[in-house]
Amino acid sequence: MLRVTTLLALAIFAVGPGTIRGENPSSVERWGIFEASLKGPETGNPFLDVTFGASFRLGYRVVDVEGFYDGSGTYRVRFMPDTPGEWSYVTKSNRRELDAKSGKFLCKAASSSNHGPVRVRNTYHFGYEDGSPYLPFGTTSYAWAHQGDKLEEQTLQTLRDSPFNKMRMCVFPKSYVYNTNEPQYYPFPRDSSGKNDFTHFNPEFFRHFEGRIRDLMNLGIEADLILFHPYDRWGYQSMPAEVDDRYLHYLVARVAAFRNVWWSMANEWDFMKSKKLSDFDRFFHIVQETDPYRHLRSIHNGTILYDHSKPWVTHASIQGDDFSKDPVYLSDYKKPVVWDECKYEGNIQRRWGNISAEEMTRRFWRGVTDGAYVGHGETYLDPADILWWSKGGVLHGQSPTRIAFLRHLIQTRAPDGLYPVPNQKYAAASTRDGSFYLYYFDLNQPAEMDFELPKNGKFKAEIIDPWTMTTTAVPGEFGETFTLKLPGKPYQAVAFEKLR
Amino acid sequence: MLRVTTLLALAIFAVGPGTIRGENPSSVERWGIFEASLKGPETGNPFLDVTFGASFRLGYRVVDVEGFYDGSGTYRVRFMPDTPGEWSYVTKSNRRELDAKSGKFLCKAASSSNHGPVRVRNTYHFGYEDGSPYLPFGTTSYAWAHQGDKLEEQTLQTLRDSPFNKMRMCVFPKSYVYNTNEPQYYPFPRDSSGKNDFTHFNPEFFRHFEGRIRDLMNLGIEADLILFHPYDRWGYQSMPAEVDDRYLHYLVARVAAFRNVWWSMANEWDFMKSKKLSDFDRFFHIVQETDPYRHLRSIHNGTILYDHSKPWVTHASIQGDDFSKDPVYLSDYKKPVVWDECKYEGNIQRRWGNISAEEMTRRFWRGVTDGAYVGHGETYLDPADILWWSKGGVLHGQSPTRIAFLRHLIQTRAPDGLYPVPNQKYAAASTRDGSFYLYYFDLNQPAEMDFELPKNGKFKAEIIDPWTMTTTAVPGEFGETFTLKLPGKPYQAVAFEKLR
Repeated sequence: MLRVTTLLALAIFAVGPGTIRGENPSSVERWGIFEASLKGPETGNPFLDVTFGASFRLGYRVVDVEGFYDGSGTYRVRFMPDTPGEWSYVTKSNRRELDAKSGKFLCKAASSSNHGPVRVRNTYHFGYEDGSPYLPFGTTSYAWAHQGDKLEEQTLQTLRDSPFNKMRMCVFPKSYVYNTNEPQYYPFPRDSSGKNDFTHFNPEFFRHFEGRIRDLMNLGIEADLILFHPYDRWGYQSMPAEVDDRYLHYLVARVAAFRNVWWSMANEWDFMKSKKLSDFDRFFHIVQETDPYRHLRSIHNGTILYDHSKPWVTHASIQGDDFSKDPVYLSDYKKPVVWDECKYEGNIQRRWGNISAEEMTRRFWRGVTDGAYVGHGETYLDPADILWWSKGGVLHGQSPTRIAFLRHLIQTRAPDGLYPVPNQKYAAASTRDGSFYLYYFDLNQPAEMDFELPKNGKFKAEIIDPWTMTTTAVPGEFGETFTLKLPGKPYQAVAFEKLR
Repeated sequence: MLRVTTLLALAIFAVGPGTIRGENPSSVERWGIFEASLKGPETGNPFLDVTFGASFRLGYRVVDVEGFYDGSGTYRVRFMPDTPGEWSYVTKSNRRELDAKSGKFLCKAASSSNHGPVRVRNTYHFGYEDGSPYLPFGTTSYAWAHQGDKLEEQTLQTLRDSPFNKMRMCVFPKSYVYNTNEPQYYPFPRDSSGKNDFTHFNPEFFRHFEGRIRDLMNLGIEADLILFHPYDRWGYQSMPAEVDDRYLHYLVARVAAFRNVWWSMANEWDFMKSKKLSDFDRFFHIVQETDPYRHLRSIHNGTILYDHSKPWVTHASIQGDDFSKDPVYLSDYKKPVVWDECKYEGNIQRRWGNISAEEMTRRFWRGVTDGAYVGHGETYLDPADILWWSKGGVLHGQSPTRIAFLRHLIQTRAPDGLYPVPNQKYAAASTRDGSFYLYYFDLNQPAEMDFELPKNGKFKAEIIDPWTMTTTAVPGEFGETFTLKLPGKPYQAVAFEKLR
C-alpha cells in the first residue's frame, strides 16, 4: 500500500563541549522522527537518577521534549518536526555529560505517503495533518506485538492486504483465555521467580514494541496504543501509582515521535479493579502534558462509559453495539464517535466473540450511516489458539472484504466524513455539502421508499448491497421528493450523488 | 383443524307468566353458549330505557349475566356454563314482559374439540380450562372482520391452514394507511352526513362481528378483541365516556359467552389522545365487573407501557422488540408476557412493517426461549391494499411455516410452557420439571458450547435450525457438564430431552 518511509535514526556524537554534530548533515522529513543519542552514565539507576530531554527550536518557537534511557549508557531524545526548516536543539539533563549539547537538522517536505498525524476535524471526523482524508476503519489485535517475530510478521503481511488503517493494541502483554503464552519480552526486568523490578524498564521490550509501531506506520496504519488493561498475570494492571506515571513518561518519550500513535488510556477501564476513575483522569493529564504532538486520546469501556465529554478526550472510543445511541453520543460529546469494539466476527463460545460476517458488515454500515465509525475484530477458533483479536496471524472471516468495499465507497464519495440527515426513519447520512447521501435500511426490507433530497438538485441513484458488494444504478435523475423501488430484502443501502 | 362445535342458539318462548319453555328440551355443551331470547318493547329507545339480564343457577350457585337488545323487539341473554348439570335461570328487567321469566337447560360434557376458555396457568403461562395445553402463537389482523364476507371467508380459510391460535382484532373498523375502505357495517346508526347516533347500537354490526368470533372459535382460535384503538375517522376513538361504558356493557353482554374471547382494552392506548390513563383503568374495571367468565384481560402499548402489574391485568401484551427486557417483565409482572406486536414481516416503507421472515422467525425463537410468547403479523405490499396485518386475505410470507415448526416443537416437548434457565449466557429455557431444555443462540454463531445440565440426568441432544426446520440428533447421551460442537452459523438452537 504505502511506500516505506525511511526513518532517520542517526547516531549523533558529541564532538566538543556544547555541540553535537552528526557524521553527515542531519535531515528528516516533516512528521518523520529525528533522534539524537548521547552516551551518559551507566552506573546507579539511570532510569531514576538521570533526567534527560531537549528543547527543539525553529525560529522563536521552542518545543520541549522528554528523552529516555535506552540502556547500555545510551540516552536518546526523539522529535517529530511538524514544520519544514532548519531546527536546532539543545539538551537538558541533571548530568553534565548529557546537558546543554546542541545540534541542528533540516526538516524537509514529507514524502508522498506521509500525511502526518491524524487530527480531529470538523467536530465529528478525522483527517491527516496535511489535510488529506483519514476515515478510521480499524481492527483490534490486542497482543499481536508480543507474539514473536514470525507471527508478528505474518500479522503485518495480513494487514498490508487488509482494509484496516488503525490497529488497537496493548503495550503490555495479555493474559486471558486463548492467551496463555508468555510474551517474548517483558517491559520490566524480572527475577527468576517472576518478580518485577519496577525501578527499571527493559529497553529491549520497548525497542521491539516501537519497531512494530514503525512497521504499522510504514503500512499507513495508525497504532491505537492501549496503555493499561485488566488482562494480566504479571502485575502490570496493579503497579504503584508512581510506576504507572513513570511508565507513561517513558512510553511517551519513546514513541510520541511516531506520527501514527494514538493513546488509549485503557481497554475496559472499568474492569480494572485496582484503579479508580481518578487514576485514568491522571493518566490523561500526564499524556496530554508530556506528548508535544497532541496525539489523539481516548479510553475504552467495559460496561461503564468514561465521560467522553471531558476536555482531554479527543474522540469517544466505545465498546457496545447499540447504535441507536449514535445521535446521543454525537450530540452529547461533540466529538468523533468510534465503536472500537462492537463484538468480533468469529465462532467462540463467548457472546462478544461469535457474531457473523454479515452482522459485522451490518454494524459497520449502521455506524457509518449514523455519522460514526466502527472497528473490526475476529475470533475464530484455531487449533493453535491464534485468534486475530489478540494474537494476529491471518484473517479467516468474510467481513474484511465488505469493510474494504465500504471504506472505498466512503473514501471516494465522502472523504471528509458523513453527517446524520435529520428526521429520517432509517439510518441516513450525507456529506456536509450535500453532494452525497447514503441511506441504510439495516434489517428492514422495504420494497419501495419515499425520499426527499434538497430542492433544485439533481442526483443519480444507486442501490447498494453491502454483502454482495454490488452497486446497481437506478435509471433516471432524482431530486426533491420521489419514490424508489427497492429490492425488498434486508441490509440494503441507497446512495445518491449530486449531478448538478 | 378443530371440528365445528354446534352452537345452540335456541329461541325460547314465554308460554305463561314466569315460565319460559323451549320447543325442545334445551341443552348446551360445557363452555358452549346458551341463549334465551324474549320479545319486549320496541318503542322508545330500548338500548337506554330497558334493563335486561338473567341469573343462572346450578344448585346454590348463582351467576348474574347482562342481556342485550338485539333490535326488532328481541332481547337476548347469553350464558357460557362451566359446569355440567341442570341449570335454571330467571330473567330480570325493568319491564314486566321481560322480568322474572324462568327456564332451565342441561349442560352436557364438552365435545372433544372444546377445551373451554384460556386461563393463566403457573404464573407465566396459559392453559385451557379443561387442563389441556394452550400456548399462544398468535397473529394480528386488526380489521379483518370489517371487510365483507368474501375476504373474511378467505381469511378464515387462511387461518385454518396456519399455525395461529390467537387473532388480535379490533371491534371498531380501522382508518389508516392501506385502510381507506368503508366497513360493511357500523357499530352505531349514522345519518346521511355520517353523524353517529351514540344512543343506539347497530345490532347488525354486532351480529356480524360475533359471527366472526364464532368462526374463530370453531377453528380453535382465540379472539383477542381490541376494544378501542386510535386509527379511526368515524368518531369511535373519542366518544363520550358514558358511550364508551355503554358500549363495553353491550359488547360484553353479546360476546362474553364465547369461550374464545380475550379482552384487550386498546391497541396503542397511549396514542389515543382523547383518552387518559384513568379511562383505560375504568375500562378494565367495567369489563372485569361485567364479564362473568373472567376472560383474559390486557392492553397493548404504543411507546408507553401500561403498568401490567395492576391486578386487573391477566397478562402483559407488549409492542416492542427488545427481548432483553424479558427477564425484567417476567419478574416485575409475575404474569405471562406476550410480545403481541414485534413488528411485521413485510416490505412496506414503515419500520414496523418490513422485517424479514428470518427476523420474524428469530423473534419468535428469542421470545419463547426467554420464557415469553410472540405474535405474528404481515405487511407485504399488495396492489389491492389487502395487507394481512389489517385486512386478512392470504399470507405471503415465509415465517408462518417456521412458526408452525416452533409451535409443534413446544407443544410436543413443553406443553406447559418454558421457564428461563438462570445464569445463562444465551437465551435458554426449560420445562418446569427439567425434562426438556431449549437453547437459542440468536445472531451468535458459536462453533462449540459448554453446557451444564442437572446432575444424575441423561439427555439426548438435538441441533435445530429454526429456518430450515431441520433437527439433527447428536450421537450419545449427555449430562452434567459437557461441550457440544455446533454448526458455527447464526440462529441455531439446541434441544435436550431427558432420557432418564
